[in-house]
Amino acid sequence: MDITTVVSIIAGILALFFGFIWEGGHPESLFEKTALLIVFGGTFAATAVSFPLSKLKMIPDALRHAFRKTEQDPYAMVDRIVDMATIARKEGVLALENMANELNDPFLRNGLLMVVDGTDPELTQQILELEIEGIERMREQQAKIFEAAGGFAPTMGIIGTVMGLIHVLSNLADPGSLGPSIAVAFTATLYGVASANLIYLPIASKIKTSNQEIVHMMELMLEGILALQAGENPQLIRKKLNSFMLLESENPRAKKVDVDAPKE
Amino acid sequence: MDITTVVSIIAGILALFFGFIWEGGHPESLFEKTALLIVFGGTFAATAVSFPLSKLKMIPDALRHAFRKTEQDPYAMVDRIVDMATIARKEGVLALENMANELNDPFLRNGLLMVVDGTDPELTQQILELEIEGIERMREQQAKIFEAAGGFAPTMGIIGTVMGLIHVLSNLADPGSLGPSIAVAFTATLYGVASANLIYLPIASKIKTSNQEIVHMMELMLEGILALQAGENPQLIRKKLNSFMLLESENPRAKKVDVDAPKE
Amino acid sequence: MDITTVVSIIAGILALFFGFIWEGGHPESLFEKTALLIVFGGTFAATAVSFPLSKLKMIPDALRHAFRKTEQDPYAMVDRIVDMATIARKEGVLALENMANELNDPFLRNGLLMVVDGTDPELTQQILELEIEGIERMREQQAKIFEAAGGFAPTMGIIGTVMGLIHVLSNLADPGSLGPSIAVAFTATLYGVASANLIYLPIASKIKTSNQEIVHMMELMLEGILALQAGENPQLIRKKLNSFMLLESENPRAKKVDVDAPKE
Amino acid sequence: MDITTVVSIIAGILALFFGFIWEGGHPESLFEKTALLIVFGGTFAATAVSFPLSKLKMIPDALRHAFRKTEQDPYAMVDRIVDMATIARKEGVLALENMANELNDPFLRNGLLMVVDGTDPELTQQILELEIEGIERMREQQAKIFEAAGGFAPTMGIIGTVMGLIHVLSNLADPGSLGPSIAVAFTATLYGVASANLIYLPIASKIKTSNQEIVHMMELMLEGILALQAGENPQLIRKKLNSFMLLESENPRAKKVDVDAPKE
Amino acid sequence: MDITTVVSIIAGILALFFGFIWEGGHPESLFEKTALLIVFGGTFAATAVSFPLSKLKMIPDALRHAFRKTEQDPYAMVDRIVDMATIARKEGVLALENMANELNDPFLRNGLLMVVDGTDPELTQQILELEIEGIERMREQQAKIFEAAGGFAPTMGIIGTVMGLIHVLSNLADPGSLGPSIAVAFTATLYGVASANLIYLPIASKIKTSNQEIVHMMELMLEGILALQAGENPQLIRKKLNSFMLLESENPRAKKVDVDAPKE
Repeated sequence: MDITTVVSIIAGILALFFGFIWEGGHPESLFEKTALLIVFGGTFAATAVSFPLSKLKMIPDALRHAFRKTEQDPYAMVDRIVDMATIARKEGVLALENMANELNDPFLRNGLLMVVDGTDPELTQQILELEIEGIERMREQQAKIFEAAGGFAPTMGIIGTVMGLIHVLSNLADPGSLGPSIAVAFTATLYGVASANLIYLPIASKIKTSNQEIVHMMELMLEGILALQAGENPQLIRKKLNSFMLLESENPRAKKVDVDAPKE
Repeated sequence: MDITTVVSIIAGILALFFGFIWEGGHPESLFEKTALLIVFGGTFAATAVSFPLSKLKMIPDALRHAFRKTEQDPYAMVDRIVDMATIARKEGVLALENMANELNDPFLRNGLLMVVDGTDPELTQQILELEIEGIERMREQQAKIFEAAGGFAPTMGIIGTVMGLIHVLSNLADPGSLGPSIAVAFTATLYGVASANLIYLPIASKIKTSNQEIVHMMELMLEGILALQAGENPQLIRKKLNSFMLLESENPRAKKVDVDAPKE
Repeated sequence: MDITTVVSIIAGILALFFGFIWEGGHPESLFEKTALLIVFGGTFAATAVSFPLSKLKMIPDALRHAFRKTEQDPYAMVDRIVDMATIARKEGVLALENMANELNDPFLRNGLLMVVDGTDPELTQQILELEIEGIERMREQQAKIFEAAGGFAPTMGIIGTVMGLIHVLSNLADPGSLGPSIAVAFTATLYGVASANLIYLPIASKIKTSNQEIVHMMELMLEGILALQAGENPQLIRKKLNSFMLLESENPRAKKVDVDAPKE
Repeated sequence: MDITTVVSIIAGILALFFGFIWEGGHPESLFEKTALLIVFGGTFAATAVSFPLSKLKMIPDALRHAFRKTEQDPYAMVDRIVDMATIARKEGVLALENMANELNDPFLRNGLLMVVDGTDPELTQQILELEIEGIERMREQQAKIFEAAGGFAPTMGIIGTVMGLIHVLSNLADPGSLGPSIAVAFTATLYGVASANLIYLPIASKIKTSNQEIVHMMELMLEGILALQAGENPQLIRKKLNSFMLLESENPRAKKVDVDAPKE
Repeated sequence: MDITTVVSIIAGILALFFGFIWEGGHPESLFEKTALLIVFGGTFAATAVSFPLSKLKMIPDALRHAFRKTEQDPYAMVDRIVDMATIARKEGVLALENMANELNDPFLRNGLLMVVDGTDPELTQQILELEIEGIERMREQQAKIFEAAGGFAPTMGIIGTVMGLIHVLSNLADPGSLGPSIAVAFTATLYGVASANLIYLPIASKIKTSNQEIVHMMELMLEGILALQAGENPQLIRKKLNSFMLLESENPRAKKVDVDAPKE
């Protein structure tokens, strides 16, 4: 569970809500059931038309990934792969079967099991690369669904407001209610813009940025699995994976360690 | 018939409509014949200018594809191709002629008939790849027509509203009718934004996303046809096609089966 | 003359105009000479600054092409090339000189004359490819001029309206004229948005889409000229050109003919 | 001096100005010193933050190029290069030194002097290509500065207008001045949108389009210099450069000459 | 410290502020705590959801780089590398160790130390290129965070204004306070648009443009380090680095020196 994401969504909604209360607004004037129906119903419908059912079914999985913490530490991963390479060198790859079955990460587990099974190295590489590309594409498509919703929501808000204004302006029997009625019409715009900018678009962005991290981690594992399968020297594997990590690590301290590492 | 698409468009229109009724609006105030003429006439005209007649004629075909369910299951397709490869190995490719003629999919049928006719493998591949690329381009151009309409519709709505306001403001003889007249002017904006976001843009998006699925399926068939023509081992064909499917299948369960498959 | 394009532009303007009349508007309130000066003058000036004179001079040629029907039928072209290939095989390429001089299409004529003159095949290919790329780039730049105008026009409309509002609001001596004056200010927005969406942007789009067709036709001719120069078998040329057409033909019937053709 | 560019900018400003006067507006109501400070100060500041000082220093040079006429005629350039090639063939490359020193164009001069100095052909090509790419990148970055200003200006106009409205609405002591005060607030929007669309964006576009012409001319010179250095036949050089020009010349007559030329 | 950047941000804020005061506005009417909470709270929350924590932690580092002057002069750098190459030629690469340890630039220092340690040239190149690409990607991601904030801020401003209008319009008990209340609502729009256009977007742009300079400088160092490691002639190294600089130097004088340099 990525606490930052959940906390930030709630904090954003609270910032808007308490800003409104602070100004003296009544909470109930922010809740408008017709605007809810128009904005969320319309956004859902437009998004549902835009994608085939097979893609829409990925929404729960997409949400799970958006809120999931990418718990893996690349440095721990390098250590683990180097450990396994050491064992494989001493005792043969078959000794890895038990270790592999205990792994949580399905990608690393599958890859190791292919090594244990003696799969041809080229086939191993090809299958694992296809799997990485498949996951990358799937995440991008999940992000596109939320981007589409983030594009439709504000326009549904405008539709709701325009419909509210049409209603208000064509029934001016009671001019005293003009102000409150227009206020009600504006809640649709509020829902549309707020849901797009606090929920849909940030989630789409989160899926894309965390996708980069996951793909980079999978590429690191792939490098490790192939080096391990080739029976390379564990220290050489460490150097290789360390220099590979230069591409992503944001930690400047870590970077120095990497650059020094090849001098060992 | 892709029920999701049809149901979603209707649901979206109903969400807006009942949101309006629920608020107390009169249904008739949503129907404005002049706004209909301006928005739909203008959008159609602008779209018709943007494309040559040969592209405009594709609109009915584009709609048919947007609402058509991509009924094919890639796993069933793999099974079918493997079955045919088994027959071709035992009885020769000529035995496939009857099977081919019974197939619904014109791409697979044509491909198989080329195999049966003993067409040169390279020519087979070249013609089928050109056909895939031709269909891909055609779908993209169809999507562009709806994207163009989705871009023109809101501006036609604004034009309608501005013309309505010009009419209202230059005839203030009866100030009492000001409100209803402005309401009428706003219906043009409503038509423009709603038609773009509930119809044109989602359909454009649907054509593009289902295009991806169709093209992937055709590439799968192409792989299968070429492997079958080369007389490859049916089990090897299955492995090849399974690993090829890693790129698209959203079903995580299926993915595991694929990864295991090569270990058979 | 591409009737669709001309009819659609007129139909679009009429749809807006009669929508306005139908609503009870007076035609004269849609014509405002100051707004005309601001919007069309401003748009023309901004577009003229954006491009060097050499590009601006292409506007009449661009308009001619936007409204010109791409009269050539690719199937007739294939037939003609195959006919010429048959003659060239029987009587030698010199026999094509008279046929070439009677051709309307300057690209095909020039290409054939180069063949007749015995130009080196590689040089022929290089010069014709440069000419195709040159025409493609020229059309793209022509489309960009209209896209730029389509981008500037609505902002010029906004400028006109804002200037109108500045004028109205700073002279409130006669509040009774407030409404009509604001109406006048809005005509600038109307002109800007309508000219962009009914004229400039659709024409830009038309130039780009018909450019694709022209370029594809020229590539078809290039293929034919080169095959003819190489003295290839007319039936093989037909197959080649037919499979090449799979990339563009939107006619599903034609597609079947193509796919069958190589089986002849 | 590119008269079109200067005349068009002035014509655009005059079109807006006289449109306003024609409508009966008072010229002084278009000048508002606070709006000037907010819009031009804000745009300048935002643009200055966006680029390092080294890029900002290029603005005068960028303006000089935007307004400078690209005075070179590619056909005259081809003639000149062919003349020099003829001399070089007869009298040796050293005979070009005086001609080179009299050339205005620094690129052609430097290139020829390198040839005269006997620089290695590959090194000549490499240095001249780096110089072309360096100039191309520099112009693109100059265009980006004006694009950035064109993006910031309208938002600064909106900021000025919103600040004006805040001022007006929080001091409603004298309702009679409401109209003129709002008019003043709108001048900021006017300045922002007009400066972006009549000055910044067209200049950015002009820099980019004339950059294409300059780069194409430099590539033509490069081709010529290299052919001349290789001691190629002057007539062959003319053919080469003519076919190279097919890519850019918008003059259809010129195009025919080119296509005929190789038949000489 | 890049004075231009800091001065420009302050100048931009002052331009807006004094423009408002000059118009007669009261400074206090620009400060609205609820709008501050909604706009800055909302923008921060939306941005925090969009990126994983590991990326958000880079914000202070990103700001440091946006405001840091890129103090390095490429010409001084070329001189320094040529000096070191001269020493390395005379006294061997080991003599560079002390010089390297005194360098401020970590990239150059690390690179030289790798040379001193006798690291394999290919490994040196690979590690340094990975480091350059890693820094380039990191800066791009930092710029994306500020771009995201610049995209969310104006919409949060609109949300704040809409919520303010909802509050105002639903409580019309005291019509006299309508104006000031709407003024208050507009401050949210002001904060959103101003913070995006004076702070977030220019900083994002600055990070990207200075990133280009830094990367170019690192590539220059890399070229120098590799040439030095290969024991190349110092004068040849100078020529190489000079021609490499043609790609970036905006100083036309410098450019001439470069072009002449290879003739030495």
